[in-house]
Amino acid sequence: MDHDDNSTSRRDFIRHTALTGAGVLLSTPTSLFAGVAQEPRRTNVASRGYAARDTSGRLSPWAFERRPVGDDDVLIDIKYSGVCHSDIHQLRGEWAPQQYPQVPGHEIAGVVTAVGRNVTRFKVGDQAGVGTMVDSCGVCDSCKRGEEQHCDRGATLFTYGYPDKTSPTGITQGGYSSNIVVKERFAIRIPQTMKLQDAACLLCAGITTYSPMLRHSVKSGDRVGIAGIGGLGHLAVKLARARGAEVYAFTTSPTKVKDILSFGAKEAIVVDSPDKLTPYNGRLDYMISTIPVDYNVGAYASLVKPYGTYTQVGMPAKGTVSINNFAFNRNRVNYNTSLVGGIRQTQALVDYCAENKIAPAIQVIRANDVNETWEKVVNKAARYRYVIDASTL
Amino acid sequence: MDHDDNSTSRRDFIRHTALTGAGVLLSTPTSLFAGVAQEPRRTNVASRGYAARDTSGRLSPWAFERRPVGDDDVLIDIKYSGVCHSDIHQLRGEWAPQQYPQVPGHEIAGVVTAVGRNVTRFKVGDQAGVGTMVDSCGVCDSCKRGEEQHCDRGATLFTYGYPDKTSPTGITQGGYSSNIVVKERFAIRIPQTMKLQDAACLLCAGITTYSPMLRHSVKSGDRVGIAGIGGLGHLAVKLARARGAEVYAFTTSPTKVKDILSFGAKEAIVVDSPDKLTPYNGRLDYMISTIPVDYNVGAYASLVKPYGTYTQVGMPAKGTVSINNFAFNRNRVNYNTSLVGGIRQTQALVDYCAENKIAPAIQVIRANDVNETWEKVVNKAARYRYVIDASTL
Repeated sequence: MDHDDNSTSRRDFIRHTALTGAGVLLSTPTSLFAGVAQEPRRTNVASRGYAARDTSGRLSPWAFERRPVGDDDVLIDIKYSGVCHSDIHQLRGEWAPQQYPQVPGHEIAGVVTAVGRNVTRFKVGDQAGVGTMVDSCGVCDSCKRGEEQHCDRGATLFTYGYPDKTSPTGITQGGYSSNIVVKERFAIRIPQTMKLQDAACLLCAGITTYSPMLRHSVKSGDRVGIAGIGGLGHLAVKLARARGAEVYAFTTSPTKVKDILSFGAKEAIVVDSPDKLTPYNGRLDYMISTIPVDYNVGAYASLVKPYGTYTQVGMPAKGTVSINNFAFNRNRVNYNTSLVGGIRQTQALVDYCAENKIAPAIQVIRANDVNETWEKVVNKAARYRYVIDASTL
Repeated sequence: MDHDDNSTSRRDFIRHTALTGAGVLLSTPTSLFAGVAQEPRRTNVASRGYAARDTSGRLSPWAFERRPVGDDDVLIDIKYSGVCHSDIHQLRGEWAPQQYPQVPGHEIAGVVTAVGRNVTRFKVGDQAGVGTMVDSCGVCDSCKRGEEQHCDRGATLFTYGYPDKTSPTGITQGGYSSNIVVKERFAIRIPQTMKLQDAACLLCAGITTYSPMLRHSVKSGDRVGIAGIGGLGHLAVKLARARGAEVYAFTTSPTKVKDILSFGAKEAIVVDSPDKLTPYNGRLDYMISTIPVDYNVGAYASLVKPYGTYTQVGMPAKGTVSINNFAFNRNRVNYNTSLVGGIRQTQALVDYCAENKIAPAIQVIRANDVNETWEKVVNKAARYRYVIDASTL
């Protein structure tokens, strides 16, 4: 099933079918008899999205199917979907070869429209989100520890582009789409007080910077550096500030300074030459870099005090950064990276942001502007995260 | 003063002059009157060494002078001097442009032949050594903490090739030579029970791997990996074993396996393909790499368990290694480097090795074999550290 028919009538038909399918599941009499082995008649869920067809990464409308809503699943009607730089890297095949058509998107926020019989944490009408993962083994040490992204059995299933036997298309399909079927365990509750367009990018950009702050116990009074103030970085500034840190933000874009200070940074430093970093050498307790290219890691890491830690979360096209060991000999800093965050941490982040009224700076776009938007992301024009309004799909 | 006269008579003359000069200092009557401002007549100390003249790094005999023995100085008659891969990198200008003639060598062991009036820890006849440093500010936080190699004022003076106003040649001159004048504070006491040829390479190779073991609290029962089993690595195996660790040694040289097991390693793994590393993934508590080239850091670091640390002490020609962030996302390992060790730590190491009878595996060479020896070091032929017998200078 692969066509580009994007007419309103066709879309309405598909949407109707999808909701009907879900409705059947919920209302089928068999579901009233718990313990009865008889299964409800389950049908694939129709979905519409924007998919890339090849390494050009150019997105176009695509109708496809998702698996039926299983006993442990929830069906989420997607309202907003964030645009992450990772989407571009992956769909263009810059990290690894890809299967196409593929729908990107792993910052998904919407409303529950159906739940399987074993689901306890969600009911129809609840706000819910999906981040970068949709499954893992659930029983290994890492999964039990709440690090599903590091499943020891290698069973972490990322939200788009990963082989998935349950998917009618053979791979997971992401959030630039009208709906998603996901195990309850991988769905994030979004408090009713939180706007869905604000929730979306917490699920990747937010957790990717928040998780290492938790790991490194960022606390009140710490001097925290954030390098690269885009989708991830601007949320990192807000989150570190919310934890009481004194935030030093490093950007190459002079036009971002005013915004950065409004996000709560104590200083916004425009790094137009490496000299601009020098005054901060050894002054920071901890630092996160979201810079998504190979760069002078040593010069930035040297801003952290000896024996502190520098965490890289930005991912260059080939994943490789060069480390100058002479710089690291001097600065005595630990370098590490961090991959998103587990489900418990992500839920905690969403709850924390709801309680503390922390929201990203976003620009809502129409689905058919998405290719142009990707170019803007690559060209650092985002202020600071683009979010697709799924009603325009 | 720059000539290549290496005849025996000339050498004897110079040696005699040097010892006489030291003798004058000790016996001059003015030194008997503490507090009297009058200074003893001090003369430069004649020395002979092997120096490089240009970036070929080719060494040839050279007579030069060292500063007079000051109040805080000791004069050490050098008996043995270790050959470190760093000597080769630096003298060939692979790390930075160099001033020539330059005498390398920072693993120096000998006997004290003169002491300045303020010296309290050494007397004539004591065994003493000098490692990679000969001065620092002494008052900054790092110096007070015993990390003179990280002097906050940038006043760390490394043992050869660094600008030194007190040196008649304008730079520090190293240990491939007959003697050295050094501040007492940077001289290491070598217990009389320790052979000087065994002491030499503790002062760089030994402390370079021991210092990070202390920093990362390697203890009994820990599984410790050592990658690269040469001068540094073989001592690392012995030192980690002495601390009670279970040592896994990774080498590319099948001919080293038997030796490595005799050094105390539990396993010696010949890494002739990256597959050989895989069975050890996530099994080690800590790991040190002495590999002195750019290599697949991610594959080795992945042997350490999540949230453990991987310390790089081998230094590639340009100081740069490539880090693959996809590997570090998975392994969750901290990467750092380590630069030698402070004076207190070095003294502690020497004392520890004396008490525990830990000695390096060395080959003593004649001075005029040093160029050939350097080629052997580069070609990984060392078994496991070459030490120059200074009596052959």
